[in-house]
Amino acid sequence: MASRTSILKFFSLLICSIAIVQMATAGDPDIITDFIAPPNGTVDGNFFTYTGFRVLVGGGPPPTAFKVLKATLAEFPSLNGQSVSYAVLQFPSGTTNPPHTHPRSAELLFLVGGTLEVGFVDTKNNLFTQTLQAGDLFVFPKGLAHFQYNADSQNPALAISAFGSANAGTVSIPSTLFATGIDDNVLAISFKTDVATIQKLKAGLAAKP
Amino acid sequence: MASRTSILKFFSLLICSIAIVQMATAGDPDIITDFIAPPNGTVDGNFFTYTGFRVLVGGGPPPTAFKVLKATLAEFPSLNGQSVSYAVLQFPSGTTNPPHTHPRSAELLFLVGGTLEVGFVDTKNNLFTQTLQAGDLFVFPKGLAHFQYNADSQNPALAISAFGSANAGTVSIPSTLFATGIDDNVLAISFKTDVATIQKLKAGLAAKP
Amino acid sequence: MASRTSILKFFSLLICSIAIVQMATAGDPDIITDFIAPPNGTVDGNFFTYTGFRVLVGGGPPPTAFKVLKATLAEFPSLNGQSVSYAVLQFPSGTTNPPHTHPRSAELLFLVGGTLEVGFVDTKNNLFTQTLQAGDLFVFPKGLAHFQYNADSQNPALAISAFGSANAGTVSIPSTLFATGIDDNVLAISFKTDVATIQKLKAGLAAKP
Amino acid sequence: MASRTSILKFFSLLICSIAIVQMATAGDPDIITDFIAPPNGTVDGNFFTYTGFRVLVGGGPPPTAFKVLKATLAEFPSLNGQSVSYAVLQFPSGTTNPPHTHPRSAELLFLVGGTLEVGFVDTKNNLFTQTLQAGDLFVFPKGLAHFQYNADSQNPALAISAFGSANAGTVSIPSTLFATGIDDNVLAISFKTDVATIQKLKAGLAAKP
Amino acid sequence: MASRTSILKFFSLLICSIAIVQMATAGDPDIITDFIAPPNGTVDGNFFTYTGFRVLVGGGPPPTAFKVLKATLAEFPSLNGQSVSYAVLQFPSGTTNPPHTHPRSAELLFLVGGTLEVGFVDTKNNLFTQTLQAGDLFVFPKGLAHFQYNADSQNPALAISAFGSANAGTVSIPSTLFATGIDDNVLAISFKTDVATIQKLKAGLAAKP
Amino acid sequence: MASRTSILKFFSLLICSIAIVQMATAGDPDIITDFIAPPNGTVDGNFFTYTGFRVLVGGGPPPTAFKVLKATLAEFPSLNGQSVSYAVLQFPSGTTNPPHTHPRSAELLFLVGGTLEVGFVDTKNNLFTQTLQAGDLFVFPKGLAHFQYNADSQNPALAISAFGSANAGTVSIPSTLFATGIDDNVLAISFKTDVATIQKLKAGLAAKP
Repeated sequence: MASRTSILKFFSLLICSIAIVQMATAGDPDIITDFIAPPNGTVDGNFFTYTGFRVLVGGGPPPTAFKVLKATLAEFPSLNGQSVSYAVLQFPSGTTNPPHTHPRSAELLFLVGGTLEVGFVDTKNNLFTQTLQAGDLFVFPKGLAHFQYNADSQNPALAISAFGSANAGTVSIPSTLFATGIDDNVLAISFKTDVATIQKLKAGLAAKP
Repeated sequence: MASRTSILKFFSLLICSIAIVQMATAGDPDIITDFIAPPNGTVDGNFFTYTGFRVLVGGGPPPTAFKVLKATLAEFPSLNGQSVSYAVLQFPSGTTNPPHTHPRSAELLFLVGGTLEVGFVDTKNNLFTQTLQAGDLFVFPKGLAHFQYNADSQNPALAISAFGSANAGTVSIPSTLFATGIDDNVLAISFKTDVATIQKLKAGLAAKP
Repeated sequence: MASRTSILKFFSLLICSIAIVQMATAGDPDIITDFIAPPNGTVDGNFFTYTGFRVLVGGGPPPTAFKVLKATLAEFPSLNGQSVSYAVLQFPSGTTNPPHTHPRSAELLFLVGGTLEVGFVDTKNNLFTQTLQAGDLFVFPKGLAHFQYNADSQNPALAISAFGSANAGTVSIPSTLFATGIDDNVLAISFKTDVATIQKLKAGLAAKP
Repeated sequence: MASRTSILKFFSLLICSIAIVQMATAGDPDIITDFIAPPNGTVDGNFFTYTGFRVLVGGGPPPTAFKVLKATLAEFPSLNGQSVSYAVLQFPSGTTNPPHTHPRSAELLFLVGGTLEVGFVDTKNNLFTQTLQAGDLFVFPKGLAHFQYNADSQNPALAISAFGSANAGTVSIPSTLFATGIDDNVLAISFKTDVATIQKLKAGLAAKP
Repeated sequence: MASRTSILKFFSLLICSIAIVQMATAGDPDIITDFIAPPNGTVDGNFFTYTGFRVLVGGGPPPTAFKVLKATLAEFPSLNGQSVSYAVLQFPSGTTNPPHTHPRSAELLFLVGGTLEVGFVDTKNNLFTQTLQAGDLFVFPKGLAHFQYNADSQNPALAISAFGSANAGTVSIPSTLFATGIDDNVLAISFKTDVATIQKLKAGLAAKP
Repeated sequence: MASRTSILKFFSLLICSIAIVQMATAGDPDIITDFIAPPNGTVDGNFFTYTGFRVLVGGGPPPTAFKVLKATLAEFPSLNGQSVSYAVLQFPSGTTNPPHTHPRSAELLFLVGGTLEVGFVDTKNNLFTQTLQAGDLFVFPKGLAHFQYNADSQNPALAISAFGSANAGTVSIPSTLFATGIDDNVLAISFKTDVATIQKLKAGLAAKP
């Protein structure tokens, strides 16, 4: 009986934990406590500290492909209810951050090094672009499709982006459309092209690890 | 001088009007009045009525391409501050509503007639699909990429969609990416394809009137 | 001891479940996940689909009294956090949807068939009315008392209403005041009438099943 | 021409002012300034002070009918954007504050003197009542129908109520339904009674000055 | 084993309870239920009633130091989700409510008796002050540093303050800075003074029980 | 008359502009347009770009006192409605950012170079501190008093902070309390010290340019 009791208890705890975590993440709105403490209750200065960005100052080898490092709700739980998060974007020369949207926040990009071509399209299909130099800020309004491109053939670019949500979310358009199994026919009609072109695009993006 | 005065005055009024309308639309959050009256102050039952959907019941010829009829802030100003709007979607057989996102609201679709293939992709790249029959509802969560497709080779489909914002907005992905002048090279790198394929897609979508 | 353990565990689970469900429903504000998954974790296209409105297209006999069919948080849990819901209103000829308020949303009514007399009263006691014909929309601002009446002696009316909340709630004034046991004297003084009139109204509304 | 110019200018200013005031009141949500200054720009301690409640401590004769004194956005403009307001309720013996709702806030009543019967009905038609004594607080949840009644045949009651909105609004049910010109027939059907009873109720409430 | 089982179960319940309460308090935004019921489910008129302020009308001896009595989420759980709370402030002659901020709400003070010097400083370092007499209201905007002082050498002052949050929170500046162990050196540099002065201030405030 | 007309017109425009700007800044909540365009209507990529941080990469001489560079609503108007902003903090060795609060946002600090002592105090008077090294993030919850101190006697420190509001606001405690003219007596009683100590603190902080 002991083991049956323990197993039941384990599931009891598990179900509670899952459901509670679910609830815990159900809101970026104002909280009515100073912060949301972790379930185990131990809160000290470490809870409010995130060290996952130390690699950026460590001087390791730069990435060879476009790379994003995030400090959001998932990596840094004390952001829960605080409506703010970061991403660091590393662009080797000639790379892009493909067109994407953030469903839950605007993005305020600060170009720390290099140069960067940026752009977004509003809901009236107006394209806004800019060539940023080091030290420039650019704001991508909430929910709109945008991209960044390091056109410099020699130098990398480095940017830090702030978001007004602990979990802004990302809809990366190429992989969302062409690497998730959406029906070829639907895509062909939508993009006014043929199925062969869709399959070619899918093949290219499937290679993405 | 009189005419100069009038011209100046005209612009004064114009600038004010523009700026004010700008402000008027600067928020879907709770309002602290019952409703937001029009600047000219005349408010009666007509202000709260929209007749632009009468064409749907008039029995005119059905559309031959996918068509959207909207009742949002732009068409129906009394929705300002009320956080709700409608779109009616008409799908001749074999047509799609191409992949798109709504930056400011979820969409609750009610399939009134016909059948419909629907789907959306979440921010973890999971695709969720469904075949709807007449009478079914489907909810597309806020900010995520989604599409609808009438696969029936014979019959049209008709749906009405509700939004929890007076101005949900639409980012239609094919035209946003391929009909706004984004640099071919950025798109080719982003979609892991060649510039020729991008130009072919652009040509197809440019045909869109 | 085993049974005592099991009973305690059962209550442990029960209390958690109740409390969690309670919490789950504690917010229509923006969520910071794409959607709120059910506790058991199985999420596919069915979770986002609601079939309870199929009866409307099934062609059964029309109702003989005013009838409301809802698709809100209670019937369709995936609406949690998506800030949108529906109700379908069926009016046999000569019936009303009695005066009521929705505490948590405006209502955007779309008259699909028939004609309908509608009205609402703002907080300055101004009455706004309209006679709607098929295809018309009417918006009832958030929190205000409103009603609908099918004055046509021959034909039924059918409307669909959208709400900018997953759980708009309804305060139906006749039953709220006269079928819940509020003291006769309080009502008589409030309505500046006698207790006999109040009791007569209560008797009429008590008949409501 | 000068006078025509001036008249036009006057209307230009007037239209702007109206529209702007309209906008100014279009939101109880968080503001992103410390406060919202008046258009004329003069802000000192007086702007944040309201003296309209001094009559309550002045010792004048008590009212002979139920009376409400308010300090909301209309009376006290600096409350704009601060999401809080007050009402003081004076109940001579045997008087009620008739059933009503507040569309934009809960009400937290503090009974300062006397006794008071209070109650509200939730959206599931459950009636919650209480007999309050001096010093008691009672919270009426947002948007629900509620009432207060001083059943004491000798003593007056005095209460102060706080609201979490600068303009909670009030839908007073008796006058909203029976003193605004709603069609007799609609009301008779809604309240399951005859037109004569409705007309009797209307007559009683019309007497309300 | 029985006792180990019971102990585990106890912690299981405890962890759930803590986590749930944590969640329950994770939002002052609009709720989508009428109210948030307590976990044990028993809800009647008492749940909406708070009697902790009866001491104010009981006629006990007045306090000899500045005293605050609160009715917030902690004391009155049914305020959860209702966005409103109270504090009663008692000022013996010559006492202050030291400079403080409320992170989550503006404060609307109603001076019930006596006189009161009040003031706040905005984020541009403008000081706004007022001398209030009985019956006056004063609004302290959200998040700004403010204070109250009863300068009358003879008479006490009594005020009631309303907040637009169930848990406005208080950052009392003297104790926050000088009674929590912040490094002397940090404070000396910040206040442009010497460590001895900081230690003197700490000693004075440490005496506070 | 012409000049009088022009002058009147100028004021008409001016009043409108002021009032409108007032309104424009009356909300950090979700906007229902993609962005809020400037009144003059010209919107291109430059509108979304801010170059005021270029000085940071220009290699000029480092500051000799603690210095803050901001990119908020005031400096960068396109942040209006986007709920995000930045500050760059430069700490010569031995300097502090004195204790302060941000009324409208949490702060997410990213230490780019050097080391930094940081701390905040919650509303229960718990002090949380940390010693950050380059690459670390620390979150200061919304509305709480916090400080930063570069204890390194040799090296400067550099941090970038993100806020979840376009205008988080700052209440700098030393200057708010001791450089705005608050009555000496109020401060002496509040800090449980004598007037001489208060005057000494005021003298030190008055020196602040």
